[in-house]
Amino acid sequence: MKFGGTSMAGTERIRRVAGIVRRQQAAGHEVAVVVSAMAGETDRLVNFCREANALYDPAEYDVVVAAGEQITSGLLALTLQAMGCKARSWLGWQLPVRTDDAHAKARIETIDSDGLIASMKSGEIAVIPGFQGLSPDGRVTTLGRGGSDTSAVAVAAAVQADRCDIYTDVDGVYTTDPRIVAKARKLKYVTYEEMLELASVGSKVLQTRSVGLAMKERVRVQVLSSFIDDDAPPADDLPGTMIVSDEELEGLEMESQLITGIAADKNEAKVTLTRVADRPGAVATIFGPLAAANINVDMIIQNVAKDKGETDVTFTVTRADLARTQALLEGQKEAIGYFRMICDSKVAKISVVGVGMRSHAGVAATMFRALAERGINIQAISTSEIKTSVLIDEDETELAVRVLHTAYGMDAE
Amino acid sequence: MKFGGTSMAGTERIRRVAGIVRRQQAAGHEVAVVVSAMAGETDRLVNFCREANALYDPAEYDVVVAAGEQITSGLLALTLQAMGCKARSWLGWQLPVRTDDAHAKARIETIDSDGLIASMKSGEIAVIPGFQGLSPDGRVTTLGRGGSDTSAVAVAAAVQADRCDIYTDVDGVYTTDPRIVAKARKLKYVTYEEMLELASVGSKVLQTRSVGLAMKERVRVQVLSSFIDDDAPPADDLPGTMIVSDEELEGLEMESQLITGIAADKNEAKVTLTRVADRPGAVATIFGPLAAANINVDMIIQNVAKDKGETDVTFTVTRADLARTQALLEGQKEAIGYFRMICDSKVAKISVVGVGMRSHAGVAATMFRALAERGINIQAISTSEIKTSVLIDEDETELAVRVLHTAYGMDAE
Repeated sequence: MKFGGTSMAGTERIRRVAGIVRRQQAAGHEVAVVVSAMAGETDRLVNFCREANALYDPAEYDVVVAAGEQITSGLLALTLQAMGCKARSWLGWQLPVRTDDAHAKARIETIDSDGLIASMKSGEIAVIPGFQGLSPDGRVTTLGRGGSDTSAVAVAAAVQADRCDIYTDVDGVYTTDPRIVAKARKLKYVTYEEMLELASVGSKVLQTRSVGLAMKERVRVQVLSSFIDDDAPPADDLPGTMIVSDEELEGLEMESQLITGIAADKNEAKVTLTRVADRPGAVATIFGPLAAANINVDMIIQNVAKDKGETDVTFTVTRADLARTQALLEGQKEAIGYFRMICDSKVAKISVVGVGMRSHAGVAATMFRALAERGINIQAISTSEIKTSVLIDEDETELAVRVLHTAYGMDAE
Repeated sequence: MKFGGTSMAGTERIRRVAGIVRRQQAAGHEVAVVVSAMAGETDRLVNFCREANALYDPAEYDVVVAAGEQITSGLLALTLQAMGCKARSWLGWQLPVRTDDAHAKARIETIDSDGLIASMKSGEIAVIPGFQGLSPDGRVTTLGRGGSDTSAVAVAAAVQADRCDIYTDVDGVYTTDPRIVAKARKLKYVTYEEMLELASVGSKVLQTRSVGLAMKERVRVQVLSSFIDDDAPPADDLPGTMIVSDEELEGLEMESQLITGIAADKNEAKVTLTRVADRPGAVATIFGPLAAANINVDMIIQNVAKDKGETDVTFTVTRADLARTQALLEGQKEAIGYFRMICDSKVAKISVVGVGMRSHAGVAATMFRALAERGINIQAISTSEIKTSVLIDEDETELAVRVLHTAYGMDAE
């Protein structure tokens, strides 16, 4: 079970969390709980670090910020004890959660689970601070913001858990953002691949890394709400959304859905270089320097050369990287040999995601037709095996999502 | 160097501390720094624990409260780095600071100093969170409130430091409380034994345990102010009070002072049992049950039996223990066989302390005469090798301290 910062914000809320945990144990489960810091606490600690040293040493930053989860893990253990449960905390360095030494963005390598399993078998609830680990040279590491989801999946894998329940402030994964489409439906199941695509295009339910790890380690993950009443269905009845493998999904559903979800991402910016020489290696002179600067390029479209052996190249980067991208490409103008650079950060990427897409032609065609009927212009297209994305004007984001939700027959009754 | 919670309260104050540390390193020293949590932070964390579980498990309490010092140690390392110093934090479990398993009041057993010494030799400033350690079974321990002084002395002993500088909100140890006696003088030197007596009778400059440890390990301790200007004398010029051994003091001062300091303690309460049977074993029936209940008895006076083989027994306990003492002795009334119990918590214990007392008769006589001249009634007397204490009416505390300060010729010019 994993609880986020909103659920852990103060002793009163921690008491509610402890109640949920206790009911899960009472249902006959051995339980490990991964917790985040109290909402706001990590920000407080990060601000201290910034004030102390603008260019902070990530190793000392980790020492400071890991304290937030240490506090909530001790408090949840105390609260469970007050309810008559056996419980103890296991800090990152105690298990230990072994990571690489990339401080502030470490990756989990292994979790020694012997002590944890023995403790759980004895009826003790294990409480584990998320987000933190131990580097090869014995120092505190953290996994980067939102890393507690990844901690939870890693712990579930290490103890070979039947299920990893992620309690959040939403009650599951929806076909699209319910704030945009009132008729969005909660999904009962979603595959790892679909969840990865949905997460990477703007659905903020789970950290992308945690989904990738769950897929690799075959951990069954359930997303469900921590704001539940005592008479809500227990977690075993799967009231949230289960994230499962393709194979499991096939066994569960008679007919897989064509499209699982629609996501909108307003975090990209479009760059067009006009009249680039249409010769071998020209594209490498553009994207080589960007890769070297660690700037991630998403969609790429190269128009067919019309005349004079010249072509226009369009691609997208995150908005945060746009200024650096511009500066870099202006410096490379001669080397690349383009005529003009046109940048536009008022764009949105709309993606339809679904494993059913693999076996069905016409998914993209439906998309283009539906958007064209409403006069929405498509600026770029990219596809993967289970996803089709288009780039459109940012102002048309909500309209496009609603149109597509209806076009794919996903609206709730 | 050790800095308390007031000095560490916020990044601005931590910057001042870093400045003091850097100057010390610039003077040619290898430096280790022990820090407390930010003022108020430990209270905040203790309150969380109380809210979570009134009868809290001290092992989980330690997990929560140790976070305060972890945060400040990382922040001081970051701040030193921002000033161009090499610095790193060493958490209690990293050194490790090995303690027993008495959670929330653990005692330090050993400190593995190899890594610490190597780091300091390489020019790195070591920053160590006070108050915390590691139990034999690998869990977080804390030393009890005020334990950071003890951490500092233990680290100084482990690295065989030339000196342990304790930076506080006073600039040294005074002959008595300067708020009571304006003419109190700051002492240049004081012996461990004197400091122990002064600390145990109400002088709050250092935690008693830290002084005992310094005496045992022969650590030279200097108490000095953390609120210093850039042009204040450097710590090497000993601007504070040095706590040293008897032998070192003899080498330093031509003639040792008769009396080093005067302390007042309003934390005691007086209990009198009247008409106790004057027979062997009667006293044991009183103090046996108190010892069993872990109630510490300080002064004891038994009046000579006047008639009928009966006597009055008077003793003192801390005010916090008075209610429990009363309840216990009421329950034992038959077994002890006393007539009446009279309790008085409006008393104060005034102590004069000094190693010179050993070789000089008449110290107590001076005390009794000076108090008598001002009409101050002495209710009880106790003495040790370097201390004479009297119990008086609480309302006369300040008067008694001033009278004695003058009587022993301690007033500043």
